[in-house]
Amino acid sequence: MWSGVMPAVTTKFGEEAGLDRAENERCFAIQMDAGCDGLIVCGSLGEGPMLTLAEKLELLGIAKSTAKGKPVLMTVAAASTAESCDIARAAAKSGADGLMIVPSLVYFTDRRETLDTLRAVVEAGDLPAMIYSNRVAYKVDVTPDMMEDLAPDERFVAIKESSDDIRRTTEIINRLGDRYDVFTGVDNLAFEALAVGAVGWVAGLVVAFPRETVAIYRLMKDGRADEALGIYRWFRPLLDLDVSRYLVQNVKLAEVHAIQSNDRVRLPRQPLQGAERQRVEKVIADALATRPQLPSFA
Amino acid sequence: MWSGVMPAVTTKFGEEAGLDRAENERCFAIQMDAGCDGLIVCGSLGEGPMLTLAEKLELLGIAKSTAKGKPVLMTVAAASTAESCDIARAAAKSGADGLMIVPSLVYFTDRRETLDTLRAVVEAGDLPAMIYSNRVAYKVDVTPDMMEDLAPDERFVAIKESSDDIRRTTEIINRLGDRYDVFTGVDNLAFEALAVGAVGWVAGLVVAFPRETVAIYRLMKDGRADEALGIYRWFRPLLDLDVSRYLVQNVKLAEVHAIQSNDRVRLPRQPLQGAERQRVEKVIADALATRPQLPSFA
Amino acid sequence: MWSGVMPAVTTKFGEEAGLDRAENERCFAIQMDAGCDGLIVCGSLGEGPMLTLAEKLELLGIAKSTAKGKPVLMTVAAASTAESCDIARAAAKSGADGLMIVPSLVYFTDRRETLDTLRAVVEAGDLPAMIYSNRVAYKVDVTPDMMEDLAPDERFVAIKESSDDIRRTTEIINRLGDRYDVFTGVDNLAFEALAVGAVGWVAGLVVAFPRETVAIYRLMKDGRADEALGIYRWFRPLLDLDVSRYLVQNVKLAEVHAIQSNDRVRLPRQPLQGAERQRVEKVIADALATRPQLPSFA
Amino acid sequence: MWSGVMPAVTTKFGEEAGLDRAENERCFAIQMDAGCDGLIVCGSLGEGPMLTLAEKLELLGIAKSTAKGKPVLMTVAAASTAESCDIARAAAKSGADGLMIVPSLVYFTDRRETLDTLRAVVEAGDLPAMIYSNRVAYKVDVTPDMMEDLAPDERFVAIKESSDDIRRTTEIINRLGDRYDVFTGVDNLAFEALAVGAVGWVAGLVVAFPRETVAIYRLMKDGRADEALGIYRWFRPLLDLDVSRYLVQNVKLAEVHAIQSNDRVRLPRQPLQGAERQRVEKVIADALATRPQLPSFA
Repeated sequence: MWSGVMPAVTTKFGEEAGLDRAENERCFAIQMDAGCDGLIVCGSLGEGPMLTLAEKLELLGIAKSTAKGKPVLMTVAAASTAESCDIARAAAKSGADGLMIVPSLVYFTDRRETLDTLRAVVEAGDLPAMIYSNRVAYKVDVTPDMMEDLAPDERFVAIKESSDDIRRTTEIINRLGDRYDVFTGVDNLAFEALAVGAVGWVAGLVVAFPRETVAIYRLMKDGRADEALGIYRWFRPLLDLDVSRYLVQNVKLAEVHAIQSNDRVRLPRQPLQGAERQRVEKVIADALATRPQLPSFA
Repeated sequence: MWSGVMPAVTTKFGEEAGLDRAENERCFAIQMDAGCDGLIVCGSLGEGPMLTLAEKLELLGIAKSTAKGKPVLMTVAAASTAESCDIARAAAKSGADGLMIVPSLVYFTDRRETLDTLRAVVEAGDLPAMIYSNRVAYKVDVTPDMMEDLAPDERFVAIKESSDDIRRTTEIINRLGDRYDVFTGVDNLAFEALAVGAVGWVAGLVVAFPRETVAIYRLMKDGRADEALGIYRWFRPLLDLDVSRYLVQNVKLAEVHAIQSNDRVRLPRQPLQGAERQRVEKVIADALATRPQLPSFA
Repeated sequence: MWSGVMPAVTTKFGEEAGLDRAENERCFAIQMDAGCDGLIVCGSLGEGPMLTLAEKLELLGIAKSTAKGKPVLMTVAAASTAESCDIARAAAKSGADGLMIVPSLVYFTDRRETLDTLRAVVEAGDLPAMIYSNRVAYKVDVTPDMMEDLAPDERFVAIKESSDDIRRTTEIINRLGDRYDVFTGVDNLAFEALAVGAVGWVAGLVVAFPRETVAIYRLMKDGRADEALGIYRWFRPLLDLDVSRYLVQNVKLAEVHAIQSNDRVRLPRQPLQGAERQRVEKVIADALATRPQLPSFA
Repeated sequence: MWSGVMPAVTTKFGEEAGLDRAENERCFAIQMDAGCDGLIVCGSLGEGPMLTLAEKLELLGIAKSTAKGKPVLMTVAAASTAESCDIARAAAKSGADGLMIVPSLVYFTDRRETLDTLRAVVEAGDLPAMIYSNRVAYKVDVTPDMMEDLAPDERFVAIKESSDDIRRTTEIINRLGDRYDVFTGVDNLAFEALAVGAVGWVAGLVVAFPRETVAIYRLMKDGRADEALGIYRWFRPLLDLDVSRYLVQNVKLAEVHAIQSNDRVRLPRQPLQGAERQRVEKVIADALATRPQLPSFA
């Protein structure tokens, strides 16, 4: 159902409290112009847990109007199942094309609770859903075994595979064939995931470097792995910024330099400072200085 | 400022949605009757992140009316600093005697962000505060070093030490003397913590076994370590239930059997089932069957 | 200098104490007949730390006579540097073509100690060496940074990359280009490693399934990734047996069924028993029952 | 059978290769003069895995002649069970009073293999044995459950409890009463372990500070916990040096300053250098400058 590069977009805040509508529009449009295949709003990178429901729906609306028919997914991630279901229902009513569901925050659900939560949320939203499997960030794993348990409900269409272990992609495919659209959710494992058969990439650095991200994806799908690998090697120091406690700050700082946006974040997050900011800015500057010529592709 | 046994109370839900006011009152009163030294509402054990602000304030009110002048603390734990500050302000306005502050949920703040969040919350609430240091559950540590940074603000009066490493208690005392009231926050390290100088115990199983908890505390303070150790050894299998993914379900199940309450929880949590429920019920039954005669003490 | 499939061979013991010379010869020959590119004796899989120096040299001699000019490497892994150097010297004197050096066992050397140990051993043996970087098994990492420090000594020619993180392969290549021959040392990350540019595979399951291992390697080098991936997916449940506390027992059990060898091991290791043995035998039986037709290749 | 302070002594090397017999004698005698209750040679702190069997037996002989009837234990720790049994037999023949048995090095034995190894070694040596349970250093745990399995063999008399979790001591006592003499093996958990009922302390910093170590032990046994705690708080920065990758180097550096010995170690270990050496020397100097007056005790 879904495939390709799906940016997990950041959220742009104004100088006062509140969203910067125009900047969100501009940034989302950059993604679509570069050939991305959809948008995912209010995820980790979008600082979803720091947004009100009204803000989430506003971002959804902006994304819908920008995506021109390509799928827009709302991220569902809340401490209580009741709140997760509220978000899912509201997103469906506001025109979301799908949901990205995080099983739980704060409390670490066990297998049974995880399955029940995923089912409750997909029932509430009644939309196609991507299951976010990320045992590293959330201490809750959705294993291939559990994916099999969920398979009878056709609304579960995709997996965001973020176990941090590239082996998992092959395990899902070996177990479940093409039942799910398997997306990699880890920027600096993306080439490897595509090499072993992932059909999509929920991407982070894409918000600052969309053309390079799309190029890697399309070259891989065209059987031009060597060319993709060349770009990926250049891209790796940037992609590494996505696997960090500071992923939001890092990616927004990349946006500062690559697409002239800002790196305002919501507390308790703070923009990078001092030596760490310099280190990241050097990574970004080095990458910009050696930006590869992209090959043409279909 | 604070010392003794401070129960981190569970929250009682009705058969429908919503709180069970009468049962919360009854259970809080059991704590106070047994000699506890205060109450902490809406913590992890109280399923705080699954409660609305209105519910939190209702629980605070119940606790205040039950505690008869002993301190009642509101737990502050939210994803965004803005929401944490809202809770702190509302709690202060509603008569809380103090705050128990969790630095962050969801996003794992770094040192600077952690300090700034703690300061923002204490400023918003303008109440005496206990700092919750729990690197295990929250992946965010408040180290003795950071406690020293916070020391100039006299509103930070206490530490809930939940690093899961008993060494930390001595490290805090060696570094900071008695600047902070050091409470242990780990039930099955409590005897050890009191032995090395903790002045209080933020307790969990106390909600089902308040007299035994208070007895251990008072015997230790009276220099009767051998008698305290005897009770503690009996208590350990129960106290171990507090250090578990299922601590809420476990402790509520202990309440079912020890004080005839119920074990309703909010989703995504579910009551224990099957073999795990049986295992825990056996621990509880064994403890009830061998409940020690408590010595008298001042 | 080195490339291709290098089996880390198991060691065959007789029914009494001591080596089974004939069986070691037979098994080594199976590797060479299938097209492997060399042999590595006395590694983890070869139960090196349970062998006497005399046994190690006997195995080296058998391998040399079987390998017909292809490189034979002796593994150096001992608690003390003095013993490591003794092994290196003896191996050189007995005709080893190279060394596989484990920085340390038992004591976990720091950066400086690790570098000094590697240098001392290569100096003692004065042979080309493959550096074994395996922070998981040995708690000692040889990082790309340290590889750069070692680069001036031309005797360090290759890396066995066993960090368990596929990202590391690209990090080495991004940092050091082709200064080192990068081998993957993790069977169930081998396809991915070859996809991102590894030139060799220090393989484990190869001892039971040499033709399949060689096929994956050669197809990858011929740009026939899809065919290699098909074999790799079939092979994965077997390859997973190499990443286990029981890797030696697992691999020897695969040899029992695939090449009619035995699974005798030295104490404290014991052959698999009971449910675990059945589980592994089922993996092996399933793989044998679905063994793929191998394509022809150069 | 055993109790009190048992130093795990360091091994003194000469300026050339080989042991420094006189210095080992002098250092062992310092321990006995201070009131220690036995000696354990060739452990981790004694660099056992870097010693030949002949050296181990020489150290055993020196210890025997120094200990004047108090028990001397030989540490058994080797990669292969055969070598472990050889050490045990040789130690018994040379007059060891007991064995300290490490289940395995290098290979991480499972439950069955661990039990079988311990049984094989105790059978070979036919001496009373202390089981070394240290899942942190050796990745192999000897759990209370396994201790129960071993209980029928009366030669297993004691446990060196080094799980790094103080809860374990109570778990052993709750499960097995006084079947085993429970020693703490972690210097900076020693006060806590004695508080909950450990009967002995396999100590490290004792080699540099024997009188303080003995004082803490005896005061605890005399019910004078407050006085013991005062010394322990002073001692903690030193005791922390025992829980480190560099424990051998740290402890020997403490010996340099406290008992005028040297800090020669065997490769791959190297003496501390630079900033780390300065940091540790400051800890030692600070402790020496504030050394407490010890109370008198029986």
